Amino acid sequence: MTGRLTIAGLGPGDAALVTPEVSAALREATDVLGYAPYVARVPAREGLRLHPSDNRMEVQRAGEALKLASEGHSVVIVSSGDPGVFAMAAAVFEALEAAPQWQDVAIRVLPGVTAMLAAAARAGAPLGHDFCAINLSDNLKPWAAIERRLRLAAEADFAIALYNPRSAGRPDGFGRALDILRDAGCGERIVIFAHAVTTPKERIETLSLKEARPEMADMATLVIIGNSATRKVGRWVYAPRRAS
Amino acid sequence: MTGRLTIAGLGPGDAALVTPEVSAALREATDVLGYAPYVARVPAREGLRLHPSDNRMEVQRAGEALKLASEGHSVVIVSSGDPGVFAMAAAVFEALEAAPQWQDVAIRVLPGVTAMLAAAARAGAPLGHDFCAINLSDNLKPWAAIERRLRLAAEADFAIALYNPRSAGRPDGFGRALDILRDAGCGERIVIFAHAVTTPKERIETLSLKEARPEMADMATLVIIGNSATRKVGRWVYAPRRAS
Repeated sequence: MTGRLTIAGLGPGDAALVTPEVSAALREATDVLGYAPYVARVPAREGLRLHPSDNRMEVQRAGEALKLASEGHSVVIVSSGDPGVFAMAAAVFEALEAAPQWQDVAIRVLPGVTAMLAAAARAGAPLGHDFCAINLSDNLKPWAAIERRLRLAAEADFAIALYNPRSAGRPDGFGRALDILRDAGCGERIVIFAHAVTTPKERIETLSLKEARPEMADMATLVIIGNSATRKVGRWVYAPRRAS
Repeated sequence: MTGRLTIAGLGPGDAALVTPEVSAALREATDVLGYAPYVARVPAREGLRLHPSDNRMEVQRAGEALKLASEGHSVVIVSSGDPGVFAMAAAVFEALEAAPQWQDVAIRVLPGVTAMLAAAARAGAPLGHDFCAINLSDNLKPWAAIERRLRLAAEADFAIALYNPRSAGRPDGFGRALDILRDAGCGERIVIFAHAVTTPKERIETLSLKEARPEMADMATLVIIGNSATRKVGRWVYAPRRAS
């Protein structure tokens, strides 16, 4: 019996944003692994084993999934949003590189609607021109690299999507990021705080960068900072296609 | 009768990547507008009027859609991928800003799986670390702005997704972009050419930037350039989460 490991994105929260491809993979699975709140989004059924685990257990979880697949199970690792964007896919390939005995496991990655796309859709079209995505978590990279990238992103006049802006364990980075962008002359830029997007707790706030305060964000918030030409029409925010 | 305008993303090509939310919007539509190859992906049915149009007709199409919605129709504008990424959403808000008579039309934007996410999933996890997306078309922005942004993206060590790398009308820009990135010291970086991703014509090619040639890309190609730490494990390409 040949197993398989599927790394699947559940989208930002609303079940109507789960792709049919991912739903089919979940229907065929014997085992689903992932961070507990994401596993909780998978409908339980007979014959399906759910393996919820804690945050920051990514590589261990990936190893466990590879082992189960190598034993013949049909395994799905779930991520929120897209599994390739600051999520489980990279962790699986790290685990695979460290464990040559699993090199022959059949793997596939199923994309999903990542948070910045859902947040942008709710706000209008702030990613309609060139943009970048930066993970503000410094659990795995030096904070200095984040600061440098923020400065260059401002200089390049990208719209900027900030993932994982702020958590209980990292209360200060987001405020520093806002200061860096204000120092880079971005104070008048439009900022979107998209909280728990596409869930019943969704809340979208739009203001200028100079008005933005760190406590407006938490781990369920996706922040988008417009480029220098981003503008409003009615309640909508968009990046003109002719921006420089 | 109140009309509505929905701007919907059809995903990269495979019907299994169309979200249930978008499928529902298409089932309820009276009118579907869009670039002809995208409208051709919408199943025909009685009572549904299809309005295919040419490329580069974005603002005219948006105006027509707003007008139909204001007359009480249930209108969907379709884009490939995600409508907010180098696609129709920004064009609709431009048209809306120019036409105050339509400010009261109910609008919603439905996100989709954009090409870079599908391409990344096929290749592994090249967008697992900070990344940017740059539209190489200079139809609406000066080429100098693109060059500057490429240089800064390389300096910031972003993975780089290039949309619309090359077309019959713009045969030379992509080659210049490759030269700029090689000059910026990125010659050893891994490049992924994802052609017609998730369609029967899909073809994924992985090589180093110094080996990349302009003619490897066309308008159906999404190009991803890894960051300086991007690596391979077996056939997979991924950005380590601990990259600087």
